[in-house]
Amino acid sequence: MALIVQKYGGSSVADARAMLRVAERIVDARKAGHNLVVVVSAMGDTTDDLLDLASQLNPHPPMREMDMLLSAGERVSMSLLAMAINNMGVKAMSYTGAQAGVLTDKHFGKAQVTGMVPERVARAIHDGVVAIVAGFQGVSSDDEVTTLGRGGSDTTAVALAAALHADVCEIYTDVDGLFTADPRIVPTAQRICRISQEETLELAAHGAKILHLRAVEFARRYNVPLHVRSSFSKLDGTWIANEPAHPELEGIVPDAALEEEAVEAPIISGIAHDRSQAKITIIGLDDKPGTAARLFSLVAGADANIDMIVQNLPTSGSGRANISFTLPEVDGERTMRVLRDAQAELGFKEMHYSEGIGILSLVGAGMRTNPGVSAKLFDALSQAGINIDLISTSEIRISVVVKYEQLDAAVRAVHSAFDLDSTDSEAVVYGGSGR
Amino acid sequence: MALIVQKYGGSSVADARAMLRVAERIVDARKAGHNLVVVVSAMGDTTDDLLDLASQLNPHPPMREMDMLLSAGERVSMSLLAMAINNMGVKAMSYTGAQAGVLTDKHFGKAQVTGMVPERVARAIHDGVVAIVAGFQGVSSDDEVTTLGRGGSDTTAVALAAALHADVCEIYTDVDGLFTADPRIVPTAQRICRISQEETLELAAHGAKILHLRAVEFARRYNVPLHVRSSFSKLDGTWIANEPAHPELEGIVPDAALEEEAVEAPIISGIAHDRSQAKITIIGLDDKPGTAARLFSLVAGADANIDMIVQNLPTSGSGRANISFTLPEVDGERTMRVLRDAQAELGFKEMHYSEGIGILSLVGAGMRTNPGVSAKLFDALSQAGINIDLISTSEIRISVVVKYEQLDAAVRAVHSAFDLDSTDSEAVVYGGSGR
Repeated sequence: MALIVQKYGGSSVADARAMLRVAERIVDARKAGHNLVVVVSAMGDTTDDLLDLASQLNPHPPMREMDMLLSAGERVSMSLLAMAINNMGVKAMSYTGAQAGVLTDKHFGKAQVTGMVPERVARAIHDGVVAIVAGFQGVSSDDEVTTLGRGGSDTTAVALAAALHADVCEIYTDVDGLFTADPRIVPTAQRICRISQEETLELAAHGAKILHLRAVEFARRYNVPLHVRSSFSKLDGTWIANEPAHPELEGIVPDAALEEEAVEAPIISGIAHDRSQAKITIIGLDDKPGTAARLFSLVAGADANIDMIVQNLPTSGSGRANISFTLPEVDGERTMRVLRDAQAELGFKEMHYSEGIGILSLVGAGMRTNPGVSAKLFDALSQAGINIDLISTSEIRISVVVKYEQLDAAVRAVHSAFDLDSTDSEAVVYGGSGR
Repeated sequence: MALIVQKYGGSSVADARAMLRVAERIVDARKAGHNLVVVVSAMGDTTDDLLDLASQLNPHPPMREMDMLLSAGERVSMSLLAMAINNMGVKAMSYTGAQAGVLTDKHFGKAQVTGMVPERVARAIHDGVVAIVAGFQGVSSDDEVTTLGRGGSDTTAVALAAALHADVCEIYTDVDGLFTADPRIVPTAQRICRISQEETLELAAHGAKILHLRAVEFARRYNVPLHVRSSFSKLDGTWIANEPAHPELEGIVPDAALEEEAVEAPIISGIAHDRSQAKITIIGLDDKPGTAARLFSLVAGADANIDMIVQNLPTSGSGRANISFTLPEVDGERTMRVLRDAQAELGFKEMHYSEGIGILSLVGAGMRTNPGVSAKLFDALSQAGINIDLISTSEIRISVVVKYEQLDAAVRAVHSAFDLDSTDSEAVVYGGSGR
C-alpha cells in the first residue's frame, strides 16, 4: 500500500467521457489498495473560453481578478471528478488550493509556493477518502486567490507529494512520457524509461515542454520520484528519480525501471530544442574589469532570463571584447532598450539583435565521464552541413546555437549520431500541458 | 452619498454585452457619489450547463461536491464584472462568499446564513472600491463551501445590506418590479409602487416568484429597504419598506414613493397564485384530544411544508372529524407514505390525495380594518362560476383553493373586482430568478 499523488492535465479531463476514464483509473488504483491524492487542471478549453470572455470586457484586466476568474476552472473539473468517482463506489472529496493548504506569495498570475499545509488532504487520506485537489491555484497570507502560472498544476502535485511524503507523483499527460527527442521532429525518437532529476531539469530548461521547470526543481529539492505517463493508455511512462526506488513502490514501479538501476546508464538521455530564444551580440566592449558584470546586472534588472553567454577574448592590444548571449524573445526588445540607454556607460561600439535562432541541447549524465561527446556532436553537425554559432556546456549538457531553419535537421543528425533512434516508430504527439 | 447594495441575477449578466450594461449602471451610481456593494449571480445558463455535466457523471452527486461545482459560477461572473468596471475607470474588486464573510451552517445545497462578517467588503467601501460579491454562496465554520439554495443571491444581498447598514438594497431582475398579479395571466396588472415587508412576505409565500421568501424575511427582520427593479431599464420598480425612507435616500428613492407614505394605502396590494401545491384529506379521524397534534407532528417529521389547514367539526355524536391540508406537490408522496403507515395509530377511515389544485391569495395590509374583503372575494368568484374548496386567512391575506383549470379565471375576476386593473397594459414577462 503506497501513497500516490496523481496529476491530470486539462486534456485528460476535457469532457465527461475523458473524466470517466480518469475516474476509472483512480478507482482501479484505490481498489488495488493504494491511498490517492489527485491534482487536476481545468477542463480542456475552459481557460481559453474564460480568457476570451475577459478580453471582451477589459483588454488589460487586473491580475487579481484574472486569478479569481481562472481559479473557477479547477473548481468545476475537481468537483465533477469527485462526483464521478463517488458514483463508482469509492469515496472522494474535492479541495480548493486554499483548502489543500497551498500557500503562496501574492504575485498574481505567477505566484510562488511559500508553504504547504495540506492538513485536510492528510485527514482525507487517513479516512480512506480520495482527495481531489485543484491544481494551479493557491491562497496568499491575506486570503487572496492566486494562480501559479504555466505548469502550475505540476507544481501543485509535486509540492503535495513532497509535503505528504508520497511514494510517487504520477504526472498524467497526453503523451507516453519523455522522449529522446521531440517525436514530431524525430519520428524514431524513443520513450526514455528512466532519467535523473538533474537531466530532466536540463531538458525542461532547454525547451522540452512536457514538464514544467519549477515542478522538476521541486521534485529534485525534495527528492520526489516522478512518473510521467499517458492518461490514454496503461503503458509505463518515464520514471524521473535519482535514488533507488522505495521498497513501498514494489508493484507500482515496473520491474524494468527498477532493474535499470543495475545496468550502466546511457551516455546521452535526450535532446531538447528551443525556438523561443533570441541572441544579442555586443561588439567592441571596453575590456576593463567590471564591465561584463555591469552589463549583466543591467540585463538582470530588465528581468531577462539569460541562458548562454559567450565572450570572445579581445584581440591582443585592442582592449575591446565581444559578448554574445541568448535570452527569451519576449524579453528581447525590453533588454535592448536598457542596454542602448547604457551605451555610453558600458562603452561598446555596436549591438546586434537576432531572433529566429535555434538551440539544440544534448543532455546526459553519462557525458560527465565520457570525453568524446563534444567531438561527436560537432562532427555530426558538420557532416550535416550545419554551422554552429555559439556553444555552452554544463556537466551534463552541451547546447549549441544554429540557424532556425536548420534546427530540425540538426536534431535528427545528432539523434542518429548518438544511436538514439528506435527501430519501431511510435505515433505520439509531443505537446506541453497548459497549466 | 448613500451606501447601496445592488443585486444582479443571472439574466442581467448573461453575456459580455449584458455585463457591460450592468457595469455602466454601477459606474454611473459610483460617479454620482454613492458607495456600492454589488452581489452577482452566475451568468445566464452557467448553472444549467454545470448541472448537465454533473448528471452525466453521477445521477445522485454528493451535495458537498455539487456546492463546490456550482460556486464556480459566481467566481466567473463576479471577476468578469470587476474587470469590466475597472476598464471604465472605476476601481472594483471581487470577493467570494467566504471572503465577504457569509458564514453558514453545513446544509449543502440549502445552507442557512448563520452570521455576516463582511470585513473585507467594509474595507473596500472605505477605500472607495466597488465590492463585487458572489451571491448564493457562503462558507461553513469548518471551511466548507456551501450554497444557499434557490433565491440565495437575494439573501446574500439583503444580509450584506443589513450587516453593512446599507441605505437600500436594490434587487435587479428582468421585470419592472412586483405587480398586482402575474401579468401573463392578467394583462392589466399594474406595477406596485410601494408595499410593506409583511405583504411582500405573504405574496412570496403564496406563489409570487419575483423575490425569495427567505430574502424578504431577512429584509423584514433587519428592516432593510428593498427596491426591486429591472436591469434592462432606468424605470423605478417596487419599493418594499415599512418605515418612512431614511433621509439619506433623498435622490435615490423617487419622490412618488416617498409621497405615497402620506396617502392612504390601498386595501389590496396584489394577488398571488400557486399551482405547485397538492391537497390531502383525511376522513373519519378519531376526535380525541391530541389526534390532530399527532397527525401534524408526523407530517412535520416527513419534512413537508404545510400551508392551509381546514378541519371540519365532527357531526354531533359521531366522534369523527375530517381534516384537509395543502402541501407542496413534491412532498406529497412522502407524506402519504408516512400517514398510511400510521393509519392504525391515528384511527382514520380514508385518505384522499389530489394534485392539480390552484390556490389564489389576496394580500393587503388594508384588509385588517376593512370587513368587506372576504365577502367581495367570494362574490367575485361566485359570479365567475368558480367553486371554493378550502379557505384560510391571516390578518393581511385570504387564500382560497379552487380547481387548477379555473385558477387563471379566478385571478382575473378577483383582480377586476378589487379595481386593480390598469388602463394601460404593460408588456412584461413575469419570471423568477434562479438563484
